[in-house]
Amino acid sequence: MKKYKSKNRLNPSEYIDGILKGDRVLLSRAITIIESNLESDKILAKEIVQAILPSSGNSIRIGITGVPGVGKSTFIEVFGKHLIQQGHRVAILSIDPSSQRSKGSILGDKTRMEELANLEEAYIRPSASGDTLGGVSNKTGETVLLCEAAGYDVILIETVGVGQSETAVHGMTDFFLLLMLAGAGDELQGIKKGIMEMADMVVINKADGENVRMSQMAKRQYQNALHIFPQSESGWSPVVSTASAIKNIGIDKVWNEIKKYKKLVLENGYFIKNRNHQQIQWMYNNINEELKQLFYGSTNIKSHLQTLEKDIIEAKISPVKAAEKIIGEFKNSFEKNSK
Amino acid sequence: MKKYKSKNRLNPSEYIDGILKGDRVLLSRAITIIESNLESDKILAKEIVQAILPSSGNSIRIGITGVPGVGKSTFIEVFGKHLIQQGHRVAILSIDPSSQRSKGSILGDKTRMEELANLEEAYIRPSASGDTLGGVSNKTGETVLLCEAAGYDVILIETVGVGQSETAVHGMTDFFLLLMLAGAGDELQGIKKGIMEMADMVVINKADGENVRMSQMAKRQYQNALHIFPQSESGWSPVVSTASAIKNIGIDKVWNEIKKYKKLVLENGYFIKNRNHQQIQWMYNNINEELKQLFYGSTNIKSHLQTLEKDIIEAKISPVKAAEKIIGEFKNSFEKNSK
Repeated sequence: MKKYKSKNRLNPSEYIDGILKGDRVLLSRAITIIESNLESDKILAKEIVQAILPSSGNSIRIGITGVPGVGKSTFIEVFGKHLIQQGHRVAILSIDPSSQRSKGSILGDKTRMEELANLEEAYIRPSASGDTLGGVSNKTGETVLLCEAAGYDVILIETVGVGQSETAVHGMTDFFLLLMLAGAGDELQGIKKGIMEMADMVVINKADGENVRMSQMAKRQYQNALHIFPQSESGWSPVVSTASAIKNIGIDKVWNEIKKYKKLVLENGYFIKNRNHQQIQWMYNNINEELKQLFYGSTNIKSHLQTLEKDIIEAKISPVKAAEKIIGEFKNSFEKNSK
Repeated sequence: MKKYKSKNRLNPSEYIDGILKGDRVLLSRAITIIESNLESDKILAKEIVQAILPSSGNSIRIGITGVPGVGKSTFIEVFGKHLIQQGHRVAILSIDPSSQRSKGSILGDKTRMEELANLEEAYIRPSASGDTLGGVSNKTGETVLLCEAAGYDVILIETVGVGQSETAVHGMTDFFLLLMLAGAGDELQGIKKGIMEMADMVVINKADGENVRMSQMAKRQYQNALHIFPQSESGWSPVVSTASAIKNIGIDKVWNEIKKYKKLVLENGYFIKNRNHQQIQWMYNNINEELKQLFYGSTNIKSHLQTLEKDIIEAKISPVKAAEKIIGEFKNSFEKNSK
């Protein structure tokens, strides 16, 4: 086991025991290992995840998204404190694909959720997304498992709603919450296509003071908009409500709806069905990413693709034939390499 | 060249010359070759497509979708005749993934668009989708190229709006038309999620007699619904209108909007940009399908995947590790086979 000792790493069992006891320091250090790209860390990470796997899963996983300015941090701070008052332990993972400066983010996050960060029952961590969507699923997905094994029973995964990570987060959560603002004109401007369809609940934040009337109007507008989508397999009809995180209005309503949702999907079997589906889908996503990596990772292939793109635009070759040609090259190179 | 002569096939040049002269019989026979799964036909198809490629592209490609009962056949018949009156030559390809009985479909289609089918300027053909989405793109996509080379300058590609082929069709057309009906309750019930977002125009059909008032209401409802989606890259704002194909009301309006669209996107450069993007994407879709086929086509892999799915649900292995394991097996088997 000495091989793990590089870079001040502990034995796997120390991380595992620490996580299972709810030790925040060891949890954080284990997450760092999950996020690391060092080969030795990858081996260590796999051993830790494998060991805590049977202790994971006992939580409700909630995706929270909304564009910058919607008041996400304040919402999560107030919402998190409300959950802790109800006896829960809350882990908050935030994904910001636009920022790879993870140390900066940690500081930023702790500052912007100051009160929550000081509570023993809250664990706040920005989640490194890596360079790919696969990165979001794997690193954040495994971080969720670790947090659950450490005893956090509500997992909030926060994204900014303008990137590509929302689909990945939707694919790893039980409930998807969209924060919006009331405003004139095109209400959904800025939010990526398709996010509205994923929402189990839309909360119009900052519904206080002079904003109340406009928020009520926005609420009706969203209710109508959500109505045009076919019913979800979960049997749940998306809810729209108004809230003011800063005035602590409507926060309990959000949690009540999530509890109603959980009750419904536990009873109708969708909760387990969806979780199983997500886990298996996670494997397939990884397989498909790896397959692409095998192909597109080759420098030979890359330069040939450029030529083929040019030839296609100039109508020198059909797309079907171009694909066939390069797949043939790939098979050949694979066979040559393996000899 | 004798090798092509099996199954009563002609020389490639006979098909190619025939298509370029607008010979409908040779066009039909060439499309049959494109749809064939015989190895010798695949080679022949590639040669034909390659040769007509420089003569393809000179058309507007229009996707038309709507659930059964919306009056698609009548709409296309009336719309097609209108286009022919304006001096166009119209090819109509219909994709029905639920029916693989292509001979039955041919008969059905000819019957349901009887007047149009008798016009020299119209060419109607059900398009075999094959078993996969890739099948839709390749076979229908190459059929489009052949029709264009044969002088058809408006290509209508019809789908039923409840399957998975709409995204594929959207990916090979310039303009996407959604036919709907006015009705009480949830207007979009039955239409697949995401189709609304792809529409450049929504036509409420059967807007005649007692239906006119309800159709006007539905029009406003769709206008509001479309409003919530962010503006498309084309710079075009989707249009909603009412029509009655059976009474020939509002059909000219549809064509006028398509002409407006074409003018806009030719001027702003989106038309060419989108066409180039679609062609290149077509190659990448094929590459990715082939890669998956290499992997999932292996019987060994298939049985291992079943075991891994079970182990994942029982929390015996993490999805990440499961993927890694089976990709390792794949690489090994590839190397062994190639020796």
